[in-house]
Amino acid sequence: MFTELITIGDEILIGQTIDTNSAWMAKELNAMGISIQQIRSIKDERSAILDALHTVPSDCQLVLITGGLGPTKDDITKHVLCEYFETKLIRNEEVLERIETYFKQRGRAILESNRKQADLPEDAIILDNYLGTASGMWFEKNNKIYVSMPGVPYEMKGIFSQEVIPRLKEKFQFPFVYHKTMMTEGIGESFLVEIIKEWENSLIEEHISVAYLPSPGIVKVRLTASGTEASDIKRKVDQKANELRKIVPTYIFGEDDISLERAVAEKLLHANFTISTAESCTGGNIAQLLTSIPGSSNYFLGSIVSYSNEVKESELGVKKEDLTNYGAVSEKVVVQMAKSVRESLKTDIGIATSGVAGPDGGTEDKPVGMVWIAISSKDGVYAKKYQFENDRHRNIRRASLAALSLVYRYLNGTLEIGS
Amino acid sequence: MFTELITIGDEILIGQTIDTNSAWMAKELNAMGISIQQIRSIKDERSAILDALHTVPSDCQLVLITGGLGPTKDDITKHVLCEYFETKLIRNEEVLERIETYFKQRGRAILESNRKQADLPEDAIILDNYLGTASGMWFEKNNKIYVSMPGVPYEMKGIFSQEVIPRLKEKFQFPFVYHKTMMTEGIGESFLVEIIKEWENSLIEEHISVAYLPSPGIVKVRLTASGTEASDIKRKVDQKANELRKIVPTYIFGEDDISLERAVAEKLLHANFTISTAESCTGGNIAQLLTSIPGSSNYFLGSIVSYSNEVKESELGVKKEDLTNYGAVSEKVVVQMAKSVRESLKTDIGIATSGVAGPDGGTEDKPVGMVWIAISSKDGVYAKKYQFENDRHRNIRRASLAALSLVYRYLNGTLEIGS
Repeated sequence: MFTELITIGDEILIGQTIDTNSAWMAKELNAMGISIQQIRSIKDERSAILDALHTVPSDCQLVLITGGLGPTKDDITKHVLCEYFETKLIRNEEVLERIETYFKQRGRAILESNRKQADLPEDAIILDNYLGTASGMWFEKNNKIYVSMPGVPYEMKGIFSQEVIPRLKEKFQFPFVYHKTMMTEGIGESFLVEIIKEWENSLIEEHISVAYLPSPGIVKVRLTASGTEASDIKRKVDQKANELRKIVPTYIFGEDDISLERAVAEKLLHANFTISTAESCTGGNIAQLLTSIPGSSNYFLGSIVSYSNEVKESELGVKKEDLTNYGAVSEKVVVQMAKSVRESLKTDIGIATSGVAGPDGGTEDKPVGMVWIAISSKDGVYAKKYQFENDRHRNIRRASLAALSLVYRYLNGTLEIGS
Repeated sequence: MFTELITIGDEILIGQTIDTNSAWMAKELNAMGISIQQIRSIKDERSAILDALHTVPSDCQLVLITGGLGPTKDDITKHVLCEYFETKLIRNEEVLERIETYFKQRGRAILESNRKQADLPEDAIILDNYLGTASGMWFEKNNKIYVSMPGVPYEMKGIFSQEVIPRLKEKFQFPFVYHKTMMTEGIGESFLVEIIKEWENSLIEEHISVAYLPSPGIVKVRLTASGTEASDIKRKVDQKANELRKIVPTYIFGEDDISLERAVAEKLLHANFTISTAESCTGGNIAQLLTSIPGSSNYFLGSIVSYSNEVKESELGVKKEDLTNYGAVSEKVVVQMAKSVRESLKTDIGIATSGVAGPDGGTEDKPVGMVWIAISSKDGVYAKKYQFENDRHRNIRRASLAALSLVYRYLNGTLEIGS
């Protein structure tokens, strides 16, 4: 089955909003074996919406539309859908009741614009929205299915999962497509490809395709195969994934789009270890990554973000003379930070960062992008110097990932911490 | 001038990558008065790329293509472009030299796949890439301009700013389009619209359009007008923006897409104030937001992320009996956290958060989404209880924004801190 995703909203065409909905839907649909032919973002205008509906590729049986259903004036989608599907809006009493309950539960007064969200196309199947006030709509015309959903991501996700997917599964049978993504950290795309060249060539005869998806610090290696024999396909792809794991064991931290912070979280839980961070240049980003995972209080106890030298001294006991003689961005200092936070917060592991995130603060000796990272455990301390790039956000991100990677490798047994 | 943006890459259609490039380009182009008609993401396949090139809307004079130029095997764009523009690849010695220098400077060995990136279409103007190895290409055909750029965001941005924009400005004259965006925090879209209804109606006769762009905690109000008389248009839009500021002074924290953290940073710099944070449920996210701004070491000194009660006691001196009697999520505790971090880190302002981010840990008294936030200054302490939502990430985000908003309002004079 082929699908087109259409996002309605001037805010996307003007660049004020990034279209994350399409990426989310694409991932969900792909997992079911539904292939996305095209993703389009169009204007919140009658002619643009009608044009898009008229030019859906003929092989697309399913059109998923998001956006343009809010209560404010810039939303006209519902009226245009009525025009295209030759129907009219009628007040839906059941939906009105749900909207009224929604506001009552939140102790908020209901507005006329909210009531109008219960005016829905007579010929559409109404898809319930339990997380907001804009209903989804399901139309059928010329052997295609068209679904319109609100653009607010969590409302869209609710309708998609609870209303759209079950209806699709009822109506169609889907082929088997299998993806396996291996997550690597700490090696660039070209170098990875060079190392695993032979393995990559061996995929051809197995009819497995491969794609490399780089982002700062991380390269995803995605394997894909499809067919009718689900277990055969799964087995051959998994086997190739395991082969890859053996070729580059230090770079792989997980599978299937797991984030590095989640991979670390799982290792910490498994080892029953706790962790703390002492962050300078990463400014709390490692703590934020670790606590983004539900249940992180089981292993993450806290962090000392020591952005100034004074705080490095007062809260982490870093020696003044070391700060003077070696500077904050030095092995001497980062080692003290990692040891100190581990001791004061009484955790099994302490990690510390100190570097020049940029754009200012770089010197010839310590250019922008230079970061010292240390990990402290009962086995001792390990510190490493990194040279990242010229961009502040990428440097913070890459330093955070490199620090988490040290934790992962320590827990995985591929990093030895001497004393 | 109308434009279409085309993104090439299976990784977008499969949902593994979010198309942030289009949003960035859209913003830049809009600021110049170039209007985006449509944004498309298509497959990394010959037929999809040719189809897209053949179906560019006839009123689009400019087509900006990103992606599909990496050194690995899944990239075929260059060959298809040669086919469409009826030209062939030839080795560009100048580009080859730059690629070789690029690798030499980084102390990395050059691979054959990298050298091949110097094979470029004979009939294209080559656009230099100083940040990577994939060159941009500029084609002209049937009165349209087509530009192909690599998909790596910072490489694309470099080529776009340094090579594409200057060439466009040389070739065309652009109309004047003026946007003004007012940033609000702490009020929902429907309620905001209700309060500013009359003001909104007054925009019609001025030919100013308005759009509301909501995201968790923040609603952007965007005004747009266009024409030939730049100063008139600017004046009338600015005047309406100022009127809005007077209607909802406590909700507006800035203009033109400024982030709340940057607005706070500017206020702190202006007041010559320093800040520290004591974070529980936000897990370092406020520190991370503040340090995402270049130059943040001028006002941000550090943070104590006290995720466990033990760390709240040992690092922030929160009284054990208060943790027992009132719980960590309480006014008593959050006030001590804010005072303590301000005192130990010797800053002008201390902010603290303690709440239930979820999904677990909620009780009847303290449900998921309940967060206490406190701000401490020389004037005393102010604490407030918030009830956010059911989603962990949104709760962390909204609590962080609410905390920053208290700082903004304190520095702005719209929040009084009693003792």
